[in-house]
Amino acid sequence: MGKVFVSIGMTLDGYVAGPNARPGNPLGDSGTRIHQWLYEVEAWRERQSMTGGASNPSGEIVEENFARAGAYVMGRRMFDEGELGWPDPPPFRAPVFVLTHHAREAWVRQGGTTFFFVTDGIEAALDRARAAAGAKDVQVSGGAETVREYLDAGLVDELEIHLAPIVLGDGVRLLDGVRTDLRLEPDRVVAAAGVTHVRYRVLMPGGG
Amino acid sequence: MGKVFVSIGMTLDGYVAGPNARPGNPLGDSGTRIHQWLYEVEAWRERQSMTGGASNPSGEIVEENFARAGAYVMGRRMFDEGELGWPDPPPFRAPVFVLTHHAREAWVRQGGTTFFFVTDGIEAALDRARAAAGAKDVQVSGGAETVREYLDAGLVDELEIHLAPIVLGDGVRLLDGVRTDLRLEPDRVVAAAGVTHVRYRVLMPGGG
Repeated sequence: MGKVFVSIGMTLDGYVAGPNARPGNPLGDSGTRIHQWLYEVEAWRERQSMTGGASNPSGEIVEENFARAGAYVMGRRMFDEGELGWPDPPPFRAPVFVLTHHAREAWVRQGGTTFFFVTDGIEAALDRARAAAGAKDVQVSGGAETVREYLDAGLVDELEIHLAPIVLGDGVRLLDGVRTDLRLEPDRVVAAAGVTHVRYRVLMPGGG
Repeated sequence: MGKVFVSIGMTLDGYVAGPNARPGNPLGDSGTRIHQWLYEVEAWRERQSMTGGASNPSGEIVEENFARAGAYVMGRRMFDEGELGWPDPPPFRAPVFVLTHHAREAWVRQGGTTFFFVTDGIEAALDRARAAAGAKDVQVSGGAETVREYLDAGLVDELEIHLAPIVLGDGVRLLDGVRTDLRLEPDRVVAAAGVTHVRYRVLMPGGG
């Protein structure tokens, strides 16, 4: 069975989005500053149907991320906010399981992305994502609240933070309110231009 | 002229101390969790008059830190809270300039540490520390508020964060309220057991 991982950009003061995030402003005010390093990466640009960009250590991490993710889970808010920014073909190219309270038929997009809407909770969504991913891994995409729910439930194996060297001062913090007995073990650090990629193994509280 | 640097332990959620920090509880509740990696380092233990400990990549960073610091600046609260924990000889072995509103005579301790009390502001304290440090560097020790004041004033050349893989959930955050146009450039990352050392060059806003 594959792993469950989180891979998310965060500022040095802990924000994964700026204030006032909403459809049309999915990253919040100044939120694009968090991902500045990403926009220059060829592997990411290609998924956005954009040409050019750099092939560098950050690019290798982005490629690895896309290659391992056989399915995604995301929160309803992230879906709502991101939807406008994901014209066909969306960047996922794999099944995406959206946590929601409102049943809705699966939405098949171009390029391999299908959004499935799951109304029976985070464990059910993960089960379906695992089944869809097969031997590959499942990425819990976000937003912050969804990541915390999976961390709190002990369902995440790896947490990779793309630490942006900036201070945002306001917005949505990734770890506010998450369980404080979370046990993390750094297992890979990659220094890159304008970002530091820090990956943690998530150990179970009281366990291993 | 030497550099001005900050070197400080911080949790993944941004805390440099737990809640309820006070004399006798200088790191706040659960604050020792932030520095767990440090307590095992021989170079640090030796400064605390403790024997044993490990010689590892974190130890090299601690040694480098002590070797380069020709003088220290610290806030009054850090001094008050730390004083009880620094029996003779205190770990600094160099002049320490304490920011305060209350004039007080210099306090000469054993082993090369003298606390000087500076009442005319952060620039004056830094000037005196620079003069005392000579060709060596000046460390702005803390606490968080003092670090922010120096960052806000554009007086810090390097910021090294010892990123602890823990979540504290409450306490004193390093970067809350600091200027959001702070420009940082990662220039060294060291992966170690139980901590990630990330060092940034601090660039002047709008400058270089």
